[in-house]
Amino acid sequence: MSQANLMTGDPYDAIARLGTAPLWRYYGNLFAAEPKSRAVPYRWSYAALRPYLLHFADVLSLEEAERRVLMLVNPGLTEPPATTTNLYAGIQVILPGETAQAHRHTAGAFRFIIEGNGAYTTVNGERVHMRPGDLLLTPGWHWHDHAHEGDGPMLWLDGLDYPLVNALEVGFFELYSERTQKADVPDDISSRQFIHGRLTPAWDPKPSANSPIGNYPWEETSRAFDAIADDASGSDADGVVLEYTNPWTGGPVMPTIGCRIARLRPGFRGVSRRQTPSTIYHVVRGEGVTIVDGQRLEWGEKDVFAVPGWAAYEHRNASLSDDAILFSYSDTPAVTALGLYREEYVR
Amino acid sequence: MSQANLMTGDPYDAIARLGTAPLWRYYGNLFAAEPKSRAVPYRWSYAALRPYLLHFADVLSLEEAERRVLMLVNPGLTEPPATTTNLYAGIQVILPGETAQAHRHTAGAFRFIIEGNGAYTTVNGERVHMRPGDLLLTPGWHWHDHAHEGDGPMLWLDGLDYPLVNALEVGFFELYSERTQKADVPDDISSRQFIHGRLTPAWDPKPSANSPIGNYPWEETSRAFDAIADDASGSDADGVVLEYTNPWTGGPVMPTIGCRIARLRPGFRGVSRRQTPSTIYHVVRGEGVTIVDGQRLEWGEKDVFAVPGWAAYEHRNASLSDDAILFSYSDTPAVTALGLYREEYVR
Amino acid sequence: MSQANLMTGDPYDAIARLGTAPLWRYYGNLFAAEPKSRAVPYRWSYAALRPYLLHFADVLSLEEAERRVLMLVNPGLTEPPATTTNLYAGIQVILPGETAQAHRHTAGAFRFIIEGNGAYTTVNGERVHMRPGDLLLTPGWHWHDHAHEGDGPMLWLDGLDYPLVNALEVGFFELYSERTQKADVPDDISSRQFIHGRLTPAWDPKPSANSPIGNYPWEETSRAFDAIADDASGSDADGVVLEYTNPWTGGPVMPTIGCRIARLRPGFRGVSRRQTPSTIYHVVRGEGVTIVDGQRLEWGEKDVFAVPGWAAYEHRNASLSDDAILFSYSDTPAVTALGLYREEYVR
Amino acid sequence: MSQANLMTGDPYDAIARLGTAPLWRYYGNLFAAEPKSRAVPYRWSYAALRPYLLHFADVLSLEEAERRVLMLVNPGLTEPPATTTNLYAGIQVILPGETAQAHRHTAGAFRFIIEGNGAYTTVNGERVHMRPGDLLLTPGWHWHDHAHEGDGPMLWLDGLDYPLVNALEVGFFELYSERTQKADVPDDISSRQFIHGRLTPAWDPKPSANSPIGNYPWEETSRAFDAIADDASGSDADGVVLEYTNPWTGGPVMPTIGCRIARLRPGFRGVSRRQTPSTIYHVVRGEGVTIVDGQRLEWGEKDVFAVPGWAAYEHRNASLSDDAILFSYSDTPAVTALGLYREEYVR
Repeated sequence: MSQANLMTGDPYDAIARLGTAPLWRYYGNLFAAEPKSRAVPYRWSYAALRPYLLHFADVLSLEEAERRVLMLVNPGLTEPPATTTNLYAGIQVILPGETAQAHRHTAGAFRFIIEGNGAYTTVNGERVHMRPGDLLLTPGWHWHDHAHEGDGPMLWLDGLDYPLVNALEVGFFELYSERTQKADVPDDISSRQFIHGRLTPAWDPKPSANSPIGNYPWEETSRAFDAIADDASGSDADGVVLEYTNPWTGGPVMPTIGCRIARLRPGFRGVSRRQTPSTIYHVVRGEGVTIVDGQRLEWGEKDVFAVPGWAAYEHRNASLSDDAILFSYSDTPAVTALGLYREEYVR
Repeated sequence: MSQANLMTGDPYDAIARLGTAPLWRYYGNLFAAEPKSRAVPYRWSYAALRPYLLHFADVLSLEEAERRVLMLVNPGLTEPPATTTNLYAGIQVILPGETAQAHRHTAGAFRFIIEGNGAYTTVNGERVHMRPGDLLLTPGWHWHDHAHEGDGPMLWLDGLDYPLVNALEVGFFELYSERTQKADVPDDISSRQFIHGRLTPAWDPKPSANSPIGNYPWEETSRAFDAIADDASGSDADGVVLEYTNPWTGGPVMPTIGCRIARLRPGFRGVSRRQTPSTIYHVVRGEGVTIVDGQRLEWGEKDVFAVPGWAAYEHRNASLSDDAILFSYSDTPAVTALGLYREEYVR
Repeated sequence: MSQANLMTGDPYDAIARLGTAPLWRYYGNLFAAEPKSRAVPYRWSYAALRPYLLHFADVLSLEEAERRVLMLVNPGLTEPPATTTNLYAGIQVILPGETAQAHRHTAGAFRFIIEGNGAYTTVNGERVHMRPGDLLLTPGWHWHDHAHEGDGPMLWLDGLDYPLVNALEVGFFELYSERTQKADVPDDISSRQFIHGRLTPAWDPKPSANSPIGNYPWEETSRAFDAIADDASGSDADGVVLEYTNPWTGGPVMPTIGCRIARLRPGFRGVSRRQTPSTIYHVVRGEGVTIVDGQRLEWGEKDVFAVPGWAAYEHRNASLSDDAILFSYSDTPAVTALGLYREEYVR
Repeated sequence: MSQANLMTGDPYDAIARLGTAPLWRYYGNLFAAEPKSRAVPYRWSYAALRPYLLHFADVLSLEEAERRVLMLVNPGLTEPPATTTNLYAGIQVILPGETAQAHRHTAGAFRFIIEGNGAYTTVNGERVHMRPGDLLLTPGWHWHDHAHEGDGPMLWLDGLDYPLVNALEVGFFELYSERTQKADVPDDISSRQFIHGRLTPAWDPKPSANSPIGNYPWEETSRAFDAIADDASGSDADGVVLEYTNPWTGGPVMPTIGCRIARLRPGFRGVSRRQTPSTIYHVVRGEGVTIVDGQRLEWGEKDVFAVPGWAAYEHRNASLSDDAILFSYSDTPAVTALGLYREEYVR
């Protein structure tokens, strides 16, 4: 083809027909000076949502729902729904006598227990019991189903990385052949075998990038804060913040999701900082405000709030007498593994 | 709030106003049985595109364009434009006497040289010269500009991970204070210091997840194939396939992008397999066909084609007398680091 | 030199004068079919040694002794004295009101507390208090001194890798400028900050191949065994055996020494196995026998015994009603890091 | 036993009978201020040794000798014989038509070829051919035998870590069932598959702490120096020094031995430094002097010299017109893996 022939039509039309587009008409859109997440800072009120959760527990069976969960949808991330760019949060409710169908998926998941007693999840054949404040892991491709044998409704926060897994288009899903798994190891064995501060079973080691621990119970978390007492200054932005770790590696509990628990002392006012990963917080106790890119998110007990990636955040404990305790999770492990972590203080 | 009050409106409306959505109405969409990429199998014809590249070289100055590139846009990924889910390919042209503005970005990049002689890119102060078949790296946040001091147009394939970086919302971009950088180290020094099969400079080591090598020259790639000769069976799917590596780690050249070069012997017919990462191929030499999820992509010299993630692919060298040489890059390092790699043979 | 000239003397004399020796006259000595340690299986009786420890505490001041320790010298390793090839064990005694001079050395060390209360060691400015059953670490090149502010004598097991460090000829030693260090951080802070089952301080991380934990207290060890209860089969050779780990890595507490604690259930009879590293045991509780290369080592509470490398060992708990608890340490981390670990069952 | 009874004999005798010794009588010997190797600085003259090597080749068959090697015995390390604390060097000779019995041992080994042509070693079934300047690896527990099908004697430097392996008492040895192995893969395939400056076979990966490369040929080493030319300043102590690396890890070729090749430019005078590992040098080309703890080791082509651990060394190229090329190996990987590496400049 000569250049003369080529000129007989609009070359922009021609290259479009050949499956291409001119980079020079896209440049600014593709390469922004800094990240601006589509997600917005947002807080979900537990007090407002709880009645609806109980309502749906009344009117919708688990056979119909498979999982009875209100997804916490970021107003900037509705299609598909997500809580921050890479992460999802939902609140799940299950009633006494109910079971939730066993399945597995590529997405990694955890539950942080909000209220209730007597339920358990079965993960790859191990029953893991739930109490408020417990962190239960369901790493990717682990079979899991839930059952409730106690009294009263059981509610928990679900965290998953499915927005990341789906964005990468690498997700698989499979239903179990029966409704629930049989328990074929002692109850809560994984948590009990790794209960101590740093003693690891030395027989039959099975190192993995996923933590083997089914439950990081609140009782232990509470002991950790008690042991540190007021003898640690902690982070100027995040307070006395502890990372739940994978005992095989010392690193995060899953390769895509990191989980933390922070104590903000009475009157704590954090400095303002930002980082490329996004973070979702759940208020275990206390009340305060987090200022995110200038927007005030006021939070109380059991609320959930989202801090998008590269948004400046600043935590404040509103009480001068009581601690605030914030559970949080982020995609820091994923972002760091790809060499894409960056942080800075904001003045 | 009592449940009675709650019932006065539609509870689905109410929970929507509270920033939530019912998971049970989304389940199948969020958790598919297996990945189905929005990207489609596609081949871009170099012969068809080359005249347009030269046309735009005539009519569009580099001062206007910053970079003069035709983006290879996958028909399934037009908004924003990408070549596969996480990766981008483009063909860039630069004329004698031109320079392209220095900048840096979070996205990692490389160039694989298609034709021309006498151009170089300057990366963090080092001039790296280009010859056909060379692989030049520009890892994330490295300053880079281009200049051409030879005769005739210079064309190359650009590969970047900006679709991934942008999906994760972690990208930064910065213009250099001048149009081009000064060369402040000897030309091509990084490639020369690591030229040999396995000898690494032992003074001033600077291990990094990014390869320190500016250029993996074709001359060395060619020697590698000659040394192996016909003494390796290679992979039944990918032929005699070699990974470009980071000498500090033995791993991929960048934490997000892996680069390979494969020799398909005369008459090679690969078995069919699929893997969660996606791959973009560039035909260095030869002609053949790759069957992707049942669709035939016929390719000849200098063409580019895309194999989406989890699409079954099967390579065939159409010649019974000549080798086909395929350069390729994929997001395998990123997918693997997140524990999300999976592959299988397809019968 | 011509071969004729060369023949005028005995060539064996000549090559000796040139600093060489004929390999063919040494072969069998240098390359044995399998390892045969110079160390022998041996047990040290705590009941027999204790009176002498108290005697020397009476007659020898710490100013004279710097450290008042009986070295447990393997009969096969007297010059220089060592307990196994790479490891040393000693029993140290300190009286109320005494202090032991601050120093540091390349050799890594720990103390496992046998009896007494009220003493502490100061490690790099942190006072670490001792109670029976506690494991206190003093990794290489950490300043440390001891002080006793309680009642009655304090006795503990010292473990060091100085035989390895000295064999490698890489050891340094330095006295502190004063007799004892000032405490400049809160007492026991390192142990308290890492107390919990898997929660790691996320501010100011300082990953290292040495554990940051000053004390792994018996109280936590005891909780670990209680949590596991009888729900773990454990190792057929070592019982329910737990590895003390470095929270930054999930690996051993020091790069040269690994520490473990094992519960042998009532009536436990281990299978016989051997491994290239050597191991030193301390009986925390119970009585039994360990058969080492056919030799019976009978042990009771607080005794110490040594299993040389590649010696077959077989543990038996003599009681049908009570547990035996064995603390142990070995050079497994060093041997493994060098690719020299091997093990096998012995029938 | 009461303290009164205890006093009836000499308590020092009593504790000796109980298998112990008083630490306070050993302290200074066990904890020296800094390392002082038993090894001494030493140089072995190739010109002086060569006639004896040929003599023994005449009078001693390989059937008798298994290996015909003059061990380079450090005057400070005669029992058992070693060249430095952890390493051994020997010079081996083999004549045309000879074969050396196949065996394997825990100790890792390499050969650096000094003179001759036409011999090969067979390592785990692969024939690896030798030319002067080549580095051939025989990692621990790899079967190996040698054969010579050329003309004239073949001489090489053998390097092993058996002093370390034997000090750790972890060494195994086994004779092959036949005199030599059959070649069951293409000749020199491992070296050819990894020939290039950073291209790794991507089919059937077998990562290991031992390099998979049978031969790092001189031809490639020479190209590496040519590529760098005079464009690298190199190390002020070691010149333009390159590390032979394991392509799977980017690290040293074996977990216990690191190999390097250095070019000292005409007139090079290095600064004086010392490090805890010890190093053995072989002069590939040139002449000069290395001052080791004040002692002058004058060296010429093909000589070997030893620098003990923590001895200050300073290299000088005696020529103002020609390069000196020094091959060297050290126990740096082992010392570093154990956290025991230290270095300093000496003024």
